[in-house]
Amino acid sequence: MISHPISIGLFGLGTVGQGFYHVIQQAINAHADIRRICVRNIAKKRDVEVNPAILTDNMEDIFNDPEVNLIVEVVDDAEASYRIVTTALRRGLPVVSGSKAMIARHLPELIDLQQKYGGALLYDASACGSIPVIRNLEEYYDNDLLLEVKGILNGSSNYILSRVFDHGEDYSLALRKAQEAGFAESDPTFDISGMDSLFKLVIITLHAIGVYVAPERVLTLGITNIGDADIRYAREKGVKIKLVAQVVKLSDGKFTLFVMPEFVVPSRYIYSVDNEYNGVVIRGECYDRQFMFGKGAGGSPTASSLLSDVMARHHGYRYEYKKMNYIDRPEFTTDVTLKVYIRYCETDIPSLIPIERIHERYSSESGLNYIIADVNMTRLIAHRQILDRPDVFTVNFPQFFLDRDD
Amino acid sequence: MISHPISIGLFGLGTVGQGFYHVIQQAINAHADIRRICVRNIAKKRDVEVNPAILTDNMEDIFNDPEVNLIVEVVDDAEASYRIVTTALRRGLPVVSGSKAMIARHLPELIDLQQKYGGALLYDASACGSIPVIRNLEEYYDNDLLLEVKGILNGSSNYILSRVFDHGEDYSLALRKAQEAGFAESDPTFDISGMDSLFKLVIITLHAIGVYVAPERVLTLGITNIGDADIRYAREKGVKIKLVAQVVKLSDGKFTLFVMPEFVVPSRYIYSVDNEYNGVVIRGECYDRQFMFGKGAGGSPTASSLLSDVMARHHGYRYEYKKMNYIDRPEFTTDVTLKVYIRYCETDIPSLIPIERIHERYSSESGLNYIIADVNMTRLIAHRQILDRPDVFTVNFPQFFLDRDD
Repeated sequence: MISHPISIGLFGLGTVGQGFYHVIQQAINAHADIRRICVRNIAKKRDVEVNPAILTDNMEDIFNDPEVNLIVEVVDDAEASYRIVTTALRRGLPVVSGSKAMIARHLPELIDLQQKYGGALLYDASACGSIPVIRNLEEYYDNDLLLEVKGILNGSSNYILSRVFDHGEDYSLALRKAQEAGFAESDPTFDISGMDSLFKLVIITLHAIGVYVAPERVLTLGITNIGDADIRYAREKGVKIKLVAQVVKLSDGKFTLFVMPEFVVPSRYIYSVDNEYNGVVIRGECYDRQFMFGKGAGGSPTASSLLSDVMARHHGYRYEYKKMNYIDRPEFTTDVTLKVYIRYCETDIPSLIPIERIHERYSSESGLNYIIADVNMTRLIAHRQILDRPDVFTVNFPQFFLDRDD
Repeated sequence: MISHPISIGLFGLGTVGQGFYHVIQQAINAHADIRRICVRNIAKKRDVEVNPAILTDNMEDIFNDPEVNLIVEVVDDAEASYRIVTTALRRGLPVVSGSKAMIARHLPELIDLQQKYGGALLYDASACGSIPVIRNLEEYYDNDLLLEVKGILNGSSNYILSRVFDHGEDYSLALRKAQEAGFAESDPTFDISGMDSLFKLVIITLHAIGVYVAPERVLTLGITNIGDADIRYAREKGVKIKLVAQVVKLSDGKFTLFVMPEFVVPSRYIYSVDNEYNGVVIRGECYDRQFMFGKGAGGSPTASSLLSDVMARHHGYRYEYKKMNYIDRPEFTTDVTLKVYIRYCETDIPSLIPIERIHERYSSESGLNYIIADVNMTRLIAHRQILDRPDVFTVNFPQFFLDRDD
């Protein structure tokens, strides 16, 4: 528990940092005060009016201020974020962070630092903006019943796919609109490559299953290479393509996780998750499926999640990573068979990737080809570079992988 | 925190009690054991196979057992439930309860008992079955940003209305089907009168706003009197009638809550909450609307929620009722204007209830009449007995009440 009033040292004053500044002004009953703000460039013009006296570009100004009793870190640079968070934890200061890439890469060390120095790190804002996914996985779904967490975790790519499938726009126009609306960065690679979803999934997996899986071990395919032929194929079948992240317990005491575009039929909950929204389906024994839905992108929704973590820490909350101490933690595997659609032009997929079984094969004189085939996930990972070629696009058929109907 | 292993004294072995028994067998990592079960009738035949030696019909057998370190109470009798829960709290024993009627009526006393004797009472299972609404309101939405909680909280009445609006069945057939499917009791009064939703709403309100409002102060109108004319009216307008419970902050530092049938248009989240499902929309500044959706009725979903509370208590969790200590708690009011549809036959509504303004008035020689009118909620409460007459049915138009679009 930290004493009242909450006196915050804030790192970062970009979209989320400004949103947080605004939220703190609104939440008067929080009795929280932003005492200092560390930014890269003090002189930069910003939308929010901040007293210049509290701005600094030296992180030690925050760490050396004895009044600061909580760090909030929302910088857009994974290395700086790592330095800030580890410094705070080593000094026993509680930290609230939204830096998913940094957290997903360093979670084991960050957990160790919390245990060693008695500090606490909260990061619900790092996955699904305003939806309280991590806290609920850690606390409410803290038992064996949980079987699967599956969802749309990236608002930018979902916004683009919504424009394509709901508004009939072509992909490049949709991407431009997403950038104009502020849902995609000027460099959208992080979002459309699936990396953003992957980092969130790695964090979610630790809190869902109790096991840390390093990002580089996870099959991650994005929507970068989606083409008109793929969009047409999906439309003809009456389905949408969505970028889906999932972690699933298998029946043999193992589990797997992956990020892939997926054909989603209208009866699934996630079919209706459109625009910049995120939606997560939590499936378990006894309760079947629960669905959480909300704004996943943008400064304000993320800032509201930061505020929830600030208040939680004020009341003494910390993640206990309880599931990591379970005796029967499942084991991570990539030895599962996926049924996938792979579209290609020059790259001759069937001769390059070992395939278990081909269900359908289409080729045309225009050079457009696709197969629908069963492939082992381990082989897909091994041939990742081939799947990343610009003429190749891969989509998962969820029905085949386990007998599911969400 | 309670010591391991968790040794449970269970009261009640009806649908939920049996579901809980089953869940405990499945959740092996919980290391929880049901040590004794108190039932009204030991000899009664049950679907679940329980060792007869652990059954008792004397509650003292549980309270006097020094090994029992947690009480789970799911009896279907509010008075017995009150006796069990208060006895446990007075002896400092933690209790997990799903008895919404009892909890909604006695919350202030139950909070006092927890504070006085240091025990803890958890009751997430009492509202929305498997959806973690109370825990999230208490912890995650613990700040000023929360503006409104609105949802479908009763699975039985929602199942009936779904059969009517999605399957074109008439009301009496739908009610019979709900009873056959086990979603409605042989006496469904509690569900269709809105009382079940009311009790859940009272509990939700305390955790959302920090204020206890006694059930008898709240406008509660159910679907008991719905007729073919009302169903036809809604169908013609392209909307569904749903039984909706809501608590809303008003702009003047006040708040209100009520349970009423409502015309719901297709663009609203709750429009798609069908059958026995529950759905809750949480609206706040910054995060706009979040939507939680899941199974609200049935033994297994409720049992999974009981397990979550058991594990939470095992880890030392208790409700702190933090919002009750907020300085600026809003004040409950019923002085708000609703726009309602009131259908009547013999009862001459316009001459009996003081109405602010009539927007539309319809009458026919067949004796079917309705008005669409603005009415003050205080007056609706005062004339509750008139609204309950079998020829009268009232539906809320949500658009008018505040400027909302959820």
